[in-house]
Amino acid sequence: MTVKPLQDRVLIKRLEEETKSVGGIIIPDTHKEKPAQGEVIAVGTGYRLHDGSVKALDVKKGDKVLFGKYSGTEVKVGGENYLIMKEDEILGILQ
Amino acid sequence: MTVKPLQDRVLIKRLEEETKSVGGIIIPDTHKEKPAQGEVIAVGTGYRLHDGSVKALDVKKGDKVLFGKYSGTEVKVGGENYLIMKEDEILGILQ
Amino acid sequence: MTVKPLQDRVLIKRLEEETKSVGGIIIPDTHKEKPAQGEVIAVGTGYRLHDGSVKALDVKKGDKVLFGKYSGTEVKVGGENYLIMKEDEILGILQ
Amino acid sequence: MTVKPLQDRVLIKRLEEETKSVGGIIIPDTHKEKPAQGEVIAVGTGYRLHDGSVKALDVKKGDKVLFGKYSGTEVKVGGENYLIMKEDEILGILQ
Amino acid sequence: MTVKPLQDRVLIKRLEEETKSVGGIIIPDTHKEKPAQGEVIAVGTGYRLHDGSVKALDVKKGDKVLFGKYSGTEVKVGGENYLIMKEDEILGILQ
Amino acid sequence: MTVKPLQDRVLIKRLEEETKSVGGIIIPDTHKEKPAQGEVIAVGTGYRLHDGSVKALDVKKGDKVLFGKYSGTEVKVGGENYLIMKEDEILGILQ
Amino acid sequence: MTVKPLQDRVLIKRLEEETKSVGGIIIPDTHKEKPAQGEVIAVGTGYRLHDGSVKALDVKKGDKVLFGKYSGTEVKVGGENYLIMKEDEILGILQ
Repeated sequence: MTVKPLQDRVLIKRLEEETKSVGGIIIPDTHKEKPAQGEVIAVGTGYRLHDGSVKALDVKKGDKVLFGKYSGTEVKVGGENYLIMKEDEILGILQ
Repeated sequence: MTVKPLQDRVLIKRLEEETKSVGGIIIPDTHKEKPAQGEVIAVGTGYRLHDGSVKALDVKKGDKVLFGKYSGTEVKVGGENYLIMKEDEILGILQ
Repeated sequence: MTVKPLQDRVLIKRLEEETKSVGGIIIPDTHKEKPAQGEVIAVGTGYRLHDGSVKALDVKKGDKVLFGKYSGTEVKVGGENYLIMKEDEILGILQ
Repeated sequence: MTVKPLQDRVLIKRLEEETKSVGGIIIPDTHKEKPAQGEVIAVGTGYRLHDGSVKALDVKKGDKVLFGKYSGTEVKVGGENYLIMKEDEILGILQ
Repeated sequence: MTVKPLQDRVLIKRLEEETKSVGGIIIPDTHKEKPAQGEVIAVGTGYRLHDGSVKALDVKKGDKVLFGKYSGTEVKVGGENYLIMKEDEILGILQ
Repeated sequence: MTVKPLQDRVLIKRLEEETKSVGGIIIPDTHKEKPAQGEVIAVGTGYRLHDGSVKALDVKKGDKVLFGKYSGTEVKVGGENYLIMKEDEILGILQ
Repeated sequence: MTVKPLQDRVLIKRLEEETKSVGGIIIPDTHKEKPAQGEVIAVGTGYRLHDGSVKALDVKKGDKVLFGKYSGTEVKVGGENYLIMKEDEILGILQ
């Protein structure tokens, strides 16, 4: 079972960052929050334009993307955790 | 008796998640709220475009959909509880 | 005397729900507010589009409609109470 | 001296409701505020559309209209009190 | 030296209302604020439409206009005080 | 070194008003803040219209302009202080 | 590894301003925050117009730009810190 995002939404598998710890001690990150990374798993059909037509998204399945740490909505499908967010919340594609 | 949603609204029958309990004790969910699931029962005629024409919705009767736990308005029709929400509040379609 | 609603507004006669009482005692409704029902008495000429033309409403005189409990403005005409609201506040049509 | 309202504004003479009193005692109105009534005295040239053209208003001189009790701006012209409001603040026309 | 207002702005000379006093005593106005009056001294070239063209204003030099008491920005040019406001803040033209 | 403002922004050299002092004593200005004056040093290419084309600004290099005292962002280029603001924040051109 | 910004976003390498210190003592800057400077490293494909077409950005790789001190989102790619912001947040190009 999977999820087909609607319109300009994107289904993303978050790439976990290694926990910052030294000898088991978690070091609180006092710096400004960095954006998170993830892999695009599925994309919606695209943006609904004012004339009713649809414009495909710029990101595609397999893209590694950067997004704000708190962007999107968490979704659990088939025992796996994903994020669904609008493409406009994605900052850029890692290359 | 049923309800025909107006324009870009969708009538949804919520699929209840099994209550998380162990031996009858309800375990409060301390995690971030996950979106809810439901089945589309009826759809409106579509989006009103700026030129007055109407664009059909992407979801259709029978679709299993994901949406935010607090999306939509509860409606009771013929003794049954439903939700009415705008299609834009639906995150994706389960496949 | 009656009221012709302007543009995309609709004149509605609220259908009162039977008061929930047992033996004359009013039982406060502690549940989430359900939407109210009403009958469309008159409709405006329609939506003003950006090019100045007008698009007729989807609801018509005689339709039974669902709307949020606090939608619209109360109006008293000819000794009768009505509601005036924009069609977009109507959730759906009962069939 | 009179006032020509600009664009989609309307000049209205408020129709005073008879004060609710019994034997000279003013009874405070504890009910939800009902909309006020008035007569259209003058109308602006109309709505400015996006292409620069102008669309005439739906209300005309002499119409009895319903509007929210606190709608519009009070204007005193030639010793008379009027209201100026945008046509969109008018709920409907009394017929 | 004078000021050419930009786009849909208007330069206005406020017409001072006579101070309400009886025998030199200033009587505080406890009523709802009435709009102010002024004379149009100069107008901008007009509204910028979405297609880049410009639509002339409805008010012209010499018009006596009504506007909200606190509308506009005070400007001092050549020792004289004026107001600059957008035409949309003007309620109507006195005739 | 200079700055080319982007799109509908304007680079302005503020014209300092003479400090209000009598015999070296600074008199606090208790009146309503008057707008500031400045000279246009450079202008952006213009407004981006909805169809992607660009519409030139109304102000040009050398214009003396009026703007709100707190409009714009201060910029230091080549040891000189300037303001960058959107043309829409400029109230008018001094002539 | 690098980042391709999406749509109208720009990847910027911040140009650090020399720390204001005298003899190792950091002098707090009590003045109004000045905008920051940076170099454009990569640009998105452009603005999405209403008709679905794309309009290229005005800034290009290598441009030295001015932007608000708190504009954009910090991104760490390949051990280097960058900023991603919308072109509209860039005030001007240094020349």
